[in-house]
Amino acid sequence: MRITFPACEKPMNDVRPESATAKRPAEVMKKLVALCKSRGFVFQSSEIYGGLKSAYDYGPLGAELKRNLMGEWWRDMVTTRENVVGIDASIIMHPDVWRASGHAAGFSDPLVDCKISKERFRADKAPRPAVGSELPITCPDKGVAKDWADQIRKQFGVELERDGNVLRGLRAISATEFGFFARAANAPEKTWPWRGYVSPLFGSPFLSEERQFNLMFRTALGAVDPMQEVSTILSELTAQGDLNAAVRARFPGEAADAEHMISKALRDNDRGRLLRSVIETITLPTMAYLRPETAQAMFVQFKNVLDSQGLKPPFGIAQMGKSFRNEVTVEHFIFRSCEFEQMEMEFFCEPGTQREWMSYWKEQRMNWWQRYANYKEDFRFRQHGKDEMAFYADDCYDVEYKYPWGWGELEGIASRTDYDLSQHEKHSGVTLQYVDQEKAGPDGKKPWKYKPFVIEPAAGATRALLCFLIDAYHEEERRTASGEVEIRTVLKLHPRLAPIKCAVLPLVRKDGMPEKAREIIGQMLKAGINAKYDEKHAIGKRYARHDEIGTPWCVTIDGQTLLDGTVTLRDRDTTQQVRILIAEVVATIRARLDA
Amino acid sequence: MRITFPACEKPMNDVRPESATAKRPAEVMKKLVALCKSRGFVFQSSEIYGGLKSAYDYGPLGAELKRNLMGEWWRDMVTTRENVVGIDASIIMHPDVWRASGHAAGFSDPLVDCKISKERFRADKAPRPAVGSELPITCPDKGVAKDWADQIRKQFGVELERDGNVLRGLRAISATEFGFFARAANAPEKTWPWRGYVSPLFGSPFLSEERQFNLMFRTALGAVDPMQEVSTILSELTAQGDLNAAVRARFPGEAADAEHMISKALRDNDRGRLLRSVIETITLPTMAYLRPETAQAMFVQFKNVLDSQGLKPPFGIAQMGKSFRNEVTVEHFIFRSCEFEQMEMEFFCEPGTQREWMSYWKEQRMNWWQRYANYKEDFRFRQHGKDEMAFYADDCYDVEYKYPWGWGELEGIASRTDYDLSQHEKHSGVTLQYVDQEKAGPDGKKPWKYKPFVIEPAAGATRALLCFLIDAYHEEERRTASGEVEIRTVLKLHPRLAPIKCAVLPLVRKDGMPEKAREIIGQMLKAGINAKYDEKHAIGKRYARHDEIGTPWCVTIDGQTLLDGTVTLRDRDTTQQVRILIAEVVATIRARLDA
Repeated sequence: MRITFPACEKPMNDVRPESATAKRPAEVMKKLVALCKSRGFVFQSSEIYGGLKSAYDYGPLGAELKRNLMGEWWRDMVTTRENVVGIDASIIMHPDVWRASGHAAGFSDPLVDCKISKERFRADKAPRPAVGSELPITCPDKGVAKDWADQIRKQFGVELERDGNVLRGLRAISATEFGFFARAANAPEKTWPWRGYVSPLFGSPFLSEERQFNLMFRTALGAVDPMQEVSTILSELTAQGDLNAAVRARFPGEAADAEHMISKALRDNDRGRLLRSVIETITLPTMAYLRPETAQAMFVQFKNVLDSQGLKPPFGIAQMGKSFRNEVTVEHFIFRSCEFEQMEMEFFCEPGTQREWMSYWKEQRMNWWQRYANYKEDFRFRQHGKDEMAFYADDCYDVEYKYPWGWGELEGIASRTDYDLSQHEKHSGVTLQYVDQEKAGPDGKKPWKYKPFVIEPAAGATRALLCFLIDAYHEEERRTASGEVEIRTVLKLHPRLAPIKCAVLPLVRKDGMPEKAREIIGQMLKAGINAKYDEKHAIGKRYARHDEIGTPWCVTIDGQTLLDGTVTLRDRDTTQQVRILIAEVVATIRARLDA
Repeated sequence: MRITFPACEKPMNDVRPESATAKRPAEVMKKLVALCKSRGFVFQSSEIYGGLKSAYDYGPLGAELKRNLMGEWWRDMVTTRENVVGIDASIIMHPDVWRASGHAAGFSDPLVDCKISKERFRADKAPRPAVGSELPITCPDKGVAKDWADQIRKQFGVELERDGNVLRGLRAISATEFGFFARAANAPEKTWPWRGYVSPLFGSPFLSEERQFNLMFRTALGAVDPMQEVSTILSELTAQGDLNAAVRARFPGEAADAEHMISKALRDNDRGRLLRSVIETITLPTMAYLRPETAQAMFVQFKNVLDSQGLKPPFGIAQMGKSFRNEVTVEHFIFRSCEFEQMEMEFFCEPGTQREWMSYWKEQRMNWWQRYANYKEDFRFRQHGKDEMAFYADDCYDVEYKYPWGWGELEGIASRTDYDLSQHEKHSGVTLQYVDQEKAGPDGKKPWKYKPFVIEPAAGATRALLCFLIDAYHEEERRTASGEVEIRTVLKLHPRLAPIKCAVLPLVRKDGMPEKAREIIGQMLKAGINAKYDEKHAIGKRYARHDEIGTPWCVTIDGQTLLDGTVTLRDRDTTQQVRILIAEVVATIRARLDA
């Protein structure tokens, strides 16, 4: 077996000093969210219109931070590797892609409605009270509480205590039993299906059936307004006395196909499902999805990439970009949102070599995460149990980060066998394989034609941004000249991630200092260093501002500069200043960035 | 008036040698599309599933080219300018954004159906035959032709000649007249509305009414499946005998509101429109759009950016990214597709200074386009006529490129007054203005509170990629050693755009040459130069391959390298080779890139 490791060493500093301060200030998320807004990292999307709870906009600093972060991933995963290439595929793909991948049928959350409050929530994330514990129900108001107390009395013969809008007297019973009322001795059994959980905000066990809610955003492609078609056709169909007969006449093929949903709804004489299946049938030809992951494009374009690039396994195809999931529960700022960015790679290798490559990529990816962090111990692997993995998966690990609310996922590294290529081969009818002219296959014959096995390191770019912000956020106590204690807020972002690498500050707005500052900035930009001119407020305030936004270095032009051509170079983390020649500034910063 | 021009000069080469060869090879688009697929620049999206006509995927080289191109725009428009900041907003924004901007009501194409062929097309792009010219109608087949000949005879008393599937005998009449038949003397008048155009593929004047088709892609946001809601509610409503009464009972508020579409449909007793308005009413609360342009986010986040960055007009907010338009007509490869990328900037300036800034940005942008082109004469400005501009616009120019099919748009530079900020202020209720503490307004009072005027240079990134590929595509005749004439295909991309800057080629795969090559690549990557190792095929074939993909330089390691530490450096455009020391390679290429 030939394993070719990338030929080029990453020219990246792997070691950063640990901070001496306590690592997580209290209420770090609250403070971080406030800083993100006030300094222009992250804004609520469409905030002036009341905001869109599921989406965020990146302000001037957040946009740079994200560009840097994703640029680092691309550099590490694509540019510096001989055997990995990048692609950039469309967000709207052919709907058959998602049928082949399983997303159309299976990418869904189980949703439930609370009958009392109408709250809609994910069953798999709902609170599960212990057997025997009380189940107080908080109703939206007193009126609703009274109505429900009446209804429960009438329907089940159970008298609940009412305390304003709260109903008491129910207890959870074992999930294996059917019926859940266990108040005193007079509770009848088998009265309501107890699902083992209650609605998150109201604590109610009176719930609708669970139903699967697909997380893919749908849209319609083509010069047809699907709602116009639906209303025209439904108007015709429902104008007639016998809906079933009208549907049979309009959709004879579908009605005759015993497996078609129209046919099934007709058999069951279910009017709601019949209309639903008519609507689905009308809208199907133009239906398209927004991609819920970037990964499938690497399988769908496998053949084009292989043919055009003359690649030979092992090789990787990488992609970064937006994905969309209609998440029922959005949470923890940008941790889970409906629109987010991913950085994914599919690594195609010979069947049988997947274990070696899994351990190679685990190491590579963990190194990448830790390289940019102040606290390496906040990253860990978690191996998936057999019950967590898809049936085709060989092995799977999450890279987890210790968020303020606990360990959570940053990246999944999965050994996916040849499942994806097989699925797309089956659904598209196009052969997706590698032909190795130099090797004999397991049957001893040349060439060896095989579908490569896949290792997939799939990272969340939006989560990466959040985790490095949390890792970077520091509050430091320090004593001022007058002896008072003050708090210094500093974002200790890795210099390669920092939105601005160097602020260039004229001490005063005169005496040629602004001109000198702009001259230095010109040199830095030429050397690819994102430098910013800043003349607003007193110098101390400017340092504080750049500490807060994570600028690693400040160069200050003062009176001495004009005499001897030196400036001060201030370090964000130590706040130490050294005097160096202007001629040395660019090389010094470039060297620290490349270290 | 204070006009602060960017302080930093762009460190970019403004001059490129003109090529001596004929500039546009025949059938350049056909060849370019083939090269894009075979070399991995651009693939049809979801090709193995028959392709999605409206979307494209960027392969390994296309992804790099696009990254470089958009990176150059960002560097020129954001990084190197003191008074421009970038943002990166979400694709799904609050639906009210598109109501305020006018897109929800007005961003639409006029669509028409051909009654004979069912072809659907844009009325504004359809062929307009001259008055008096013949109108031969091509029917899908003979049967359809016969049916329509019969129908026309019965309905209008006109006998057409039938020639297989073609019907002849109609002539176009003046667009101002009503009725269009003008065959011989027996043609009755006022028979069919003549719109002045025919269907593009079939030449038929038998057309449906024009209707507005909104170009925005719709989707639904939130834990509700809108089609489930629609089918449940319509099932209830249509099960009752009197649909109007059922709708009135279910939507009493809407039915009572004389201006609501439900109320109007009830008044008109129009069943189709009633169902349509019920569906719209049900789906409205969860409806969202994919952005059709990136620009609105700069207005919506104007206040957050202003507050967080301490900016003062004149300043700009820039954004690059995907936009989506459900184009009825997609054309010319990636020129017009449904998913594409934009690079837009909103430049906020004091009212009254917009003319100066328009001329500043016109110059800046034209310089940018021409900087990367071989043929500067293929770019021009076209000023919009009064009739082309929106009512609020002050002035507008297109930067046009001479595509193989004619001049077409690359970028629009519009003077938009304070229209956008005013609209969003009105719809959101949030004040969007700048408060200038140091200046008195037109009323003589301090501070001056005003809504800045806007100059918007809005460029297509996808079109930029296409235009620079067309500009770069060259075929050169040259004589081989044996005297034969051969064609060299070479992509003369600007070195800063080229996907790979330098190929490093060991002459043979032994004698330590591969190791030496990888050593050189390591140095280049460290200097930020995207270099690629390539050992496949004979050296001449490798040069030809890199000419075709636009790699500006090839470094070759040969026998002499191992003796004296020199390599050959080959120039793509001249094919000349020079021998230089390995130690000089990185600095030489870096200098040419930065020149």
